[in-house]
Amino acid sequence: MSANASIAVRPATPGDAGTIVRMVRDLARFEDMLDQVRITEEDVLRDGFGATPRFEALIAELDGAPVGFALFFHSYSTFEGRAGLYLEDVYVAPAARGAGVGKALMARLARIALARECPRFELSVLHWNPAREVYHRLGFDHASDWLPYRLQGAGLKALADLDPDR
Amino acid sequence: MSANASIAVRPATPGDAGTIVRMVRDLARFEDMLDQVRITEEDVLRDGFGATPRFEALIAELDGAPVGFALFFHSYSTFEGRAGLYLEDVYVAPAARGAGVGKALMARLARIALARECPRFELSVLHWNPAREVYHRLGFDHASDWLPYRLQGAGLKALADLDPDR
Repeated sequence: MSANASIAVRPATPGDAGTIVRMVRDLARFEDMLDQVRITEEDVLRDGFGATPRFEALIAELDGAPVGFALFFHSYSTFEGRAGLYLEDVYVAPAARGAGVGKALMARLARIALARECPRFELSVLHWNPAREVYHRLGFDHASDWLPYRLQGAGLKALADLDPDR
Repeated sequence: MSANASIAVRPATPGDAGTIVRMVRDLARFEDMLDQVRITEEDVLRDGFGATPRFEALIAELDGAPVGFALFFHSYSTFEGRAGLYLEDVYVAPAARGAGVGKALMARLARIALARECPRFELSVLHWNPAREVYHRLGFDHASDWLPYRLQGAGLKALADLDPDR
């Protein structure tokens, strides 16, 4: 990877839907969770660029070719009384690593957070992922007091039926 | 607490801003983090009911008096290709506990998730909070593979300045 490679970060457009799906799948393969991936280009177009946007995305290019992406949404902190920026996915293709693409994506996200008065930049990482070391170097702390909980599938339907009159 | 007490759950309105701030502070006091709370009624009105809504809230009433609330936003799962429902806060005043108010709030949230085709109902809980047992009983799993990370304050500004040309 040349030190002079040209890195550019730009907002994703509908034309990037295929690239985003491909990179989500590449990331899931790395996380050994490819079997869980259901996202389609139609999902990306509906939720990223439709009437009710559910996420925003950035595309990173190296010498004009897309090599990475970041996908985020706004969380909310009731303690701060402000939205936060929650990074759902960040990915750089293996062949493009070492050129500063990931750093450029993360710095751009931090600037978006500050521009929107979001006091927190948040993400979750798999406990075995070496990216944890990168996040620590960028200044992130593990918020170890907080445990993530999740309900889905049959359990979610059961809870919905638990108290249907209210 | 009478078993015949009347529970109602309704969407919050701008008139509930003071109630929401008070209950956020009550919850933070329980979590021993009251010193971290900065939210104001102005924040609630801007972020809950303004031009760019950042959260939605439900109010639970017992015999007509507000005794609890839930505040949530939409996360996004790139694996699912769907928004999730993320519960930031749920709170029931101590004097109103045991009547089913919390259960009514959680069931309503599950129905909102299903109605909006959100496959996941998510939340985070402090490791020492006995509410963990309640969430387990409602069907939630601790997603223990995932660790929450956070960047804020001077660290966030430093990351924004790290690579300002892209």
